Amino acid sequence: MGFLGLREVVVWCILLFSIEISSGSTTRQFKWDVEYMFWSPDCEENVVMGINGQFPGPTIRAKAGDTISVQLTNKLHTEGVVIHWHGIRQLGTPWADGTASISQCAINPGETFVYRFKVDKAGTYFYHGHFGMQRSAGLYGSLIVDVGDGEKEPFHYDGEFNLLLSDWWHQSVHQQEVGLSSKPFRWIGEPQSLLINGRGQFNCSLAAHFSNGSTNQCKLGGNEECAPQILSVLPNTTYRLRIASITALASLNLAVGVMSDEHEHVKVTPEDILSDRPGDILSERIEDIAENLQTLILAKNLCGVTFYNDYNYVFSQNHKMVVVEADGNYVQPFEVEDVDIYSGESYSVLLTTNQDSSKNYWISVGVRGRKPQTPQALTILNYSPTSPSILLPVSPPTITPTWNDYDHSKSFSNKIFALIGSPKPPKNRDRRIILLNTQNLIDGYIKWAINNISLLLPSTPYLGSIKYSLKGAFDNKKPPEDFPNDYDVMKPPKNPNSTYGNGVYMLGLNSTVDVILQNANALSGNVSEIHPWHLHGHNFWVLGYGEGKFNKKKDEKKFNLRNPPLRNTAVIFPYGWTALRFVADNPGVWAFHCHIEPHLHMGMGVIFAAAVQHVNNIPNQALACGLTGKSFMNTKQN
Amino acid sequence: MGFLGLREVVVWCILLFSIEISSGSTTRQFKWDVEYMFWSPDCEENVVMGINGQFPGPTIRAKAGDTISVQLTNKLHTEGVVIHWHGIRQLGTPWADGTASISQCAINPGETFVYRFKVDKAGTYFYHGHFGMQRSAGLYGSLIVDVGDGEKEPFHYDGEFNLLLSDWWHQSVHQQEVGLSSKPFRWIGEPQSLLINGRGQFNCSLAAHFSNGSTNQCKLGGNEECAPQILSVLPNTTYRLRIASITALASLNLAVGVMSDEHEHVKVTPEDILSDRPGDILSERIEDIAENLQTLILAKNLCGVTFYNDYNYVFSQNHKMVVVEADGNYVQPFEVEDVDIYSGESYSVLLTTNQDSSKNYWISVGVRGRKPQTPQALTILNYSPTSPSILLPVSPPTITPTWNDYDHSKSFSNKIFALIGSPKPPKNRDRRIILLNTQNLIDGYIKWAINNISLLLPSTPYLGSIKYSLKGAFDNKKPPEDFPNDYDVMKPPKNPNSTYGNGVYMLGLNSTVDVILQNANALSGNVSEIHPWHLHGHNFWVLGYGEGKFNKKKDEKKFNLRNPPLRNTAVIFPYGWTALRFVADNPGVWAFHCHIEPHLHMGMGVIFAAAVQHVNNIPNQALACGLTGKSFMNTKQN
Repeated sequence: MGFLGLREVVVWCILLFSIEISSGSTTRQFKWDVEYMFWSPDCEENVVMGINGQFPGPTIRAKAGDTISVQLTNKLHTEGVVIHWHGIRQLGTPWADGTASISQCAINPGETFVYRFKVDKAGTYFYHGHFGMQRSAGLYGSLIVDVGDGEKEPFHYDGEFNLLLSDWWHQSVHQQEVGLSSKPFRWIGEPQSLLINGRGQFNCSLAAHFSNGSTNQCKLGGNEECAPQILSVLPNTTYRLRIASITALASLNLAVGVMSDEHEHVKVTPEDILSDRPGDILSERIEDIAENLQTLILAKNLCGVTFYNDYNYVFSQNHKMVVVEADGNYVQPFEVEDVDIYSGESYSVLLTTNQDSSKNYWISVGVRGRKPQTPQALTILNYSPTSPSILLPVSPPTITPTWNDYDHSKSFSNKIFALIGSPKPPKNRDRRIILLNTQNLIDGYIKWAINNISLLLPSTPYLGSIKYSLKGAFDNKKPPEDFPNDYDVMKPPKNPNSTYGNGVYMLGLNSTVDVILQNANALSGNVSEIHPWHLHGHNFWVLGYGEGKFNKKKDEKKFNLRNPPLRNTAVIFPYGWTALRFVADNPGVWAFHCHIEPHLHMGMGVIFAAAVQHVNNIPNQALACGLTGKSFMNTKQN
Repeated sequence: MGFLGLREVVVWCILLFSIEISSGSTTRQFKWDVEYMFWSPDCEENVVMGINGQFPGPTIRAKAGDTISVQLTNKLHTEGVVIHWHGIRQLGTPWADGTASISQCAINPGETFVYRFKVDKAGTYFYHGHFGMQRSAGLYGSLIVDVGDGEKEPFHYDGEFNLLLSDWWHQSVHQQEVGLSSKPFRWIGEPQSLLINGRGQFNCSLAAHFSNGSTNQCKLGGNEECAPQILSVLPNTTYRLRIASITALASLNLAVGVMSDEHEHVKVTPEDILSDRPGDILSERIEDIAENLQTLILAKNLCGVTFYNDYNYVFSQNHKMVVVEADGNYVQPFEVEDVDIYSGESYSVLLTTNQDSSKNYWISVGVRGRKPQTPQALTILNYSPTSPSILLPVSPPTITPTWNDYDHSKSFSNKIFALIGSPKPPKNRDRRIILLNTQNLIDGYIKWAINNISLLLPSTPYLGSIKYSLKGAFDNKKPPEDFPNDYDVMKPPKNPNSTYGNGVYMLGLNSTVDVILQNANALSGNVSEIHPWHLHGHNFWVLGYGEGKFNKKKDEKKFNLRNPPLRNTAVIFPYGWTALRFVADNPGVWAFHCHIEPHLHMGMGVIFAAAVQHVNNIPNQALACGLTGKSFMNTKQN
């Protein structure tokens, strides 16, 4: 054998290919093939959109300041594809944002496109398809950015786990799309399963032995595609859990713990709690808080008392979690028993393994905001060393808060503030755009509309049509910045008819823009849904949440300009409003939309553009479709 | 009201839009949207790819010499689309042939492409998707070209019906594609239903009352998407049935008649027939032919005696049909009791309603060449006037010939000759290309290969990459024109390993090319399948069929150069060969492939090109992808 063995040479070649270090900055190169494949995400075989034979796609791990280069080949047979790098601002590379019809043309079958962009900021991110409903088809994965060399996170942890949460349907995305675009409308329904890192269990449960026999116990060896990834931990150690939600629909809640086996199934009536007579099964802590009880719901959640069966309340023994990061931005640490997470959001929480180390615990993920017909997703927090024979926790999983316990959700959102020392928002806005979210009808088709316009993306990407001032590529009319004063957000629209549109909110470079997201009643009475809105290319400050219709005079005065959190996704609660502020400092064209996949598909989004004339070096391939494609080719005559 | 009523004006406007007559030639304009929709082709709801809300797509009806202009908008969400005009030679418009990766880039979602081409020759044609397996998804329809003004068909008929035959699966095409491209391989299986004009009946039968109760009687009001289109006829009248098969897989046979109620279920043993003692239940006609019996099968089919149950033979009372047209070419009329039709073929047959006009009759369509697991498709030939109460025929449907009765199939094919006066083939060939059809493995994936190369289409359409001499767009190596002498076509391949390729057979303009399609044994022993090969851009003469390996010296001498039929599709029988001749007189790039959709998907095709430098006026949009797209755009820098 020579100087280096063959194996070493191969390893070195692979390293050289995948990481290229020059002049201090690192380029991490990936070669990905997107294709459909058979997979059993929830123990039921189906077709998923995978990357390099994996579902979810490979995790990208990089350091702040690195350049990521993904050479993406479309191996689908007839579908185009793009990938959006969710949370990455694409400073200087708006063409790499991976939004079909906005930042680029979809990559044709058989073709390869190179996404090359910098990850400037440490945090928990992810990537996903952004064409049709390909995200729902399974095209997603994690993108984790560590702090740069010599930098430190503002909190300590000894180990970490990555939990990418998603929801899963057995009906194909193609069928879902047809149903959503049909008259009569066919809703996709609730997901069959929730997945943790692409793994869930349909028609069986890891915790079936605690139920009354209505569910089968999962028989999994551990090697199945649907077997849970167990989190093995050491006692008295602090772990960072990176939790990201890429759900198509579901709002989620995650808790780590078990139902207390001591108090299980002990009957307490709501009156017991409300009357401040909690009885001897309730701890002193409950009694303390019960003095201030306003609602049963509040009691349940503030106290870690969980609704188990009608009038059966038990304690959950949850691991406390300290939230430290949201959407790649540090937040002022706060402790919770469970974490609310909406599609498009990410959190880092610190969990210290300070519970009885002779036991294991459940990680439970349940649905919020919609009446669930989907069982909780489960995996196991496994205190090492435990005998495999007692791997399953000895008590039932914590049950996440009731779906319509919006006070719990609001309480969580209202605890999130920027870490001290974080960038503060400009004190004044240059412009305010109020966006009314309504459900509407167009020719009898059910749509979502923003200020009565339902987004129908053009076939030419805006980045090209704006850059080259192409006529007829999209609506030139400015989209509305407000809605009629007399609109009653508490009731179904008086005139539900809406129109399609694809106009652009043109933003001045470096202007400070306030966006007020105004929720309203849907088409049916007494229905108003949660919508998590995601902004591309920027973070925004969340200045506040409110109930009912936004009051332009009064509510603005209540904005938190002191320590609002920076996010890229923020929720509007039913019948409420959410106020955001951002600086349009990133030249490009940027989607701002509800991150619920079928809602976006039904038109729930708007387009922002800023200083597109400053955008350079757009790869021609990104614009080789529609009118840009045509205009490029007019020079060639055959 | 004025000079013209509003209604008249509207009608005139529609007519003006759809037909534009100038200087003697007519342009027929169509505006089509392709989209997925819910449909119940066989009474089971599914998703189909439809056009303007119809499945099958609208029928185009034109006259020879007309120009067809189809403005096709892709309303699919993520898939590209193209439409191939099967049987239309596209003289001078090879870019309108509608073959993705060959004649054009797939039309992107949201974009519109105009197919504009002349239909120069009267005949029975059709159109269908030619990207991925979109034909199987339901993207097809009829294209009927009548003779030009002042011209006459060389046969008489009083009325006509159009029967577009297809097969249908309940599994989505996307799932089928994944299975075919998987390891282990997953075959699509036999179709759930056969469809006549897009209508079939799954899990029920129009003729269930004749069976032993194993099938449910269909309860159809007639307005259902799956209700059969009944052919209402007058007695003693001659109808032209235009029969076209667009199946994904199935070879078919069509017969019009009923089982004789008199002789039903009378037991005759094969020995009865073979021993020339047919007994008194067999007619004189049988006895005549029985003298020459060679096989039982031959007897059954030549005599119109149909295999009913084991050893139960009965007469079918079929309407005779006179075949007059094949693939848009007139043939010397010949009479048959049933018509064999392979995917990609079309026939016109004349049927005279000379049977008992107090009864109705079945039109039966059954599977040939593969062991059927699909019931016969049925519709009704309804002699007018009949009381609706006796609409259903009083006897069971004719049962089409047994699937593996290849002698019957060969007998049919061998009856087809060109109508006297048709163009004859050149006497000598300039080139001979022998194409061995084998089933192979590539990295363990099951493929079909031609001379050991499995076609993997490039992402840049050949028409552009050849026209502009782009390097690297496809294999420059010439594909092989023959296979090794010692290859045993009767056995599985000794070395089943094959390779992908996409090289081109470059043909001299106006050269006469012979193609010998050589069938062989598949991967498993004793399996050799039917493959109907379809040539784009040309008709070919079918010079002959043979058994076993083509003998270069002897077999060529037997070629029929006197009156071979012109076709665009010809079948190779199991373990046999088929000899074709054509003149490469149409500049362009032309696919030649097995018309079985999954076989093409698995690589069973080759590419011919001729005089591409003579091709002009290719719309830029047709080439706005892959390397042509890139090369066009290199002039534009941003």
